[in-house]
Amino acid sequence: MIKTVEWTDEGVRMIDQRLLPTEEKYLILRSCEEVADAIRQMVVRGAPAIGVSAAMGIALGTMQSVGTAVPDLEEDFDYFCDIMSGTRPTAVNLFWAIERMRERFRREKAAGADSEQIKERLIEEAQSIFREDIESNRALGRFGGELIHDGSTVLTHCNAGALATAGDYGTALGVVRGARDAGKRVAVIADETRPFLQGARLTAWELQKDEIPVTVITDNMAGHIMKQGKVDCVVVGADRIAANGDTANKIGTYMVAVLARQHSIPFYVAAPVSTVDLSLTSGEQIPIEERDSREVTHIRDQRLAPEGVAVQNPAFDVTPAELIAAIITDRGVARAPYMRTLRELFTQAEQE
Amino acid sequence: MIKTVEWTDEGVRMIDQRLLPTEEKYLILRSCEEVADAIRQMVVRGAPAIGVSAAMGIALGTMQSVGTAVPDLEEDFDYFCDIMSGTRPTAVNLFWAIERMRERFRREKAAGADSEQIKERLIEEAQSIFREDIESNRALGRFGGELIHDGSTVLTHCNAGALATAGDYGTALGVVRGARDAGKRVAVIADETRPFLQGARLTAWELQKDEIPVTVITDNMAGHIMKQGKVDCVVVGADRIAANGDTANKIGTYMVAVLARQHSIPFYVAAPVSTVDLSLTSGEQIPIEERDSREVTHIRDQRLAPEGVAVQNPAFDVTPAELIAAIITDRGVARAPYMRTLRELFTQAEQE
Repeated sequence: MIKTVEWTDEGVRMIDQRLLPTEEKYLILRSCEEVADAIRQMVVRGAPAIGVSAAMGIALGTMQSVGTAVPDLEEDFDYFCDIMSGTRPTAVNLFWAIERMRERFRREKAAGADSEQIKERLIEEAQSIFREDIESNRALGRFGGELIHDGSTVLTHCNAGALATAGDYGTALGVVRGARDAGKRVAVIADETRPFLQGARLTAWELQKDEIPVTVITDNMAGHIMKQGKVDCVVVGADRIAANGDTANKIGTYMVAVLARQHSIPFYVAAPVSTVDLSLTSGEQIPIEERDSREVTHIRDQRLAPEGVAVQNPAFDVTPAELIAAIITDRGVARAPYMRTLRELFTQAEQE
Repeated sequence: MIKTVEWTDEGVRMIDQRLLPTEEKYLILRSCEEVADAIRQMVVRGAPAIGVSAAMGIALGTMQSVGTAVPDLEEDFDYFCDIMSGTRPTAVNLFWAIERMRERFRREKAAGADSEQIKERLIEEAQSIFREDIESNRALGRFGGELIHDGSTVLTHCNAGALATAGDYGTALGVVRGARDAGKRVAVIADETRPFLQGARLTAWELQKDEIPVTVITDNMAGHIMKQGKVDCVVVGADRIAANGDTANKIGTYMVAVLARQHSIPFYVAAPVSTVDLSLTSGEQIPIEERDSREVTHIRDQRLAPEGVAVQNPAFDVTPAELIAAIITDRGVARAPYMRTLRELFTQAEQE
């Protein structure tokens, strides 16, 4: 099983996703700041993995706090939460995980826990988030797997696999693995996903490990491949889903959704309910991160574009709900009208 | 003025497009075989530039032939034409240029020219093709420039500029230059164009030289940028246009055309009439070159995808005529129904 991020006695252990697929190297991050840097620099990426990492980073920082009185500890804790909030703006799982940590702190404090007890409970909470992520992706994979026909070829964009989550199944690739584990034959076409190449580097790497057939294409081949009838459905992950179903995901997802519609190919989003942000009524309100132009102009130290050229580098785009055939979650499959169906899943999640 | 390919006393001189934008290096090719290799390896690329280069290569080979009798010369000449025909399958300008050389040979032979005279006339013919290419792109730029509104932002895919032709204006970028030279303000958004990065490397380089504002994006950003209302029209080149207007061009062009339609943005194709292949009734008959997977898995020596992964690498795709607002040629602007309008332009070209 691929372990993307893990709590260890030495610190938070992560596979360095910047080096894959040529090098499989693990880092031990020994402070909250190091975990925050790792998120910012995309050592770890993918909305659920960012959430798990942030929780672990906050637990780690708080554990190292020298404050013995609860108010001192709380001050440090708030500081670590703030650091984490500033790492990346789009994935809502980050804010969801921070809020869970805050809620746990409040609960333990209200129950009269002392500093040492609170530290322990925050570690527990981070580990719960980790475990739940793996479990919820297994559930999501089972629900989604039912939508995949035997013998299908699934096109995916970016990496919404084990490496985008705590590990194991993943979200979009969890659907693929769910279909495979239900005995269906399934192959994947992976958009390479410029500029960071999560498809070519990460999706290809983890599917190869899993012996699931995978073919890499450049992003601009998706339309041609669909026109040739080679794609049965599209499954992608999500960084934030608004209440109406509009979905922010890796840049290029919108393009794939438009092409899928053009070719009458079902386009599915796969994400745990923690990716749904009911506070936003539409995708227009989702903040889109603009990243360093160097990601576009260079590959490692290799310059691709002339010096001084203007570049845009939005890391995400928003796919309108009307292009989405279904949103596959850990609580079941939502279909339009999403304003109602997503809220139902969410309520159900809270009741359990 | 950028000179992509040139006839010199030493041989055929070309800028090595594989090294741009980081290195501006010129090669002197001293045999027909060397020119053919340069076409195959994409030292030179772009349909009109391939046509010009092929004609020069054939002239060069024939010039070096030791055959003094015309039948011996013809045998060598046919051999050189065959070498050139086998370089790349999609761009019809290649076959058009070879046919022009064959026609000139036949004409000179019929008129009783001797070997030395034929050699000279073939060099003349190659130089005519070179000159006509530059002139026709100037004409195309004037016609196309009229379609561009003052203050427009033009999105283009791949490089259909000076570097894709004999030099100077180019086709799609000829339209941009035509608008600029008519006094209009115009800016360009260049898709980087994976896998060979003609947009990031070549379009950005030549527009920077020309001081035309250019912004590079990854191919998968085109939809997002269009949705933001930042694109006024799309102009691309062509490698082969069927009689019905279906257009083969660099992989990803079809994707851009679908996205343009989704956002009601006019999508223009710019190409000289020598790119039109009236012998094909639809785009389905255009042969699509599949190139080495290494172009996708590596950038120079940097490995991007895991070893042994399956890859597809079609170099071109076909955009159906119904997505094309107009085809801008050196003889004027054709609009649907292309089956009639393209034939008219062609006939007109032949009559002059």
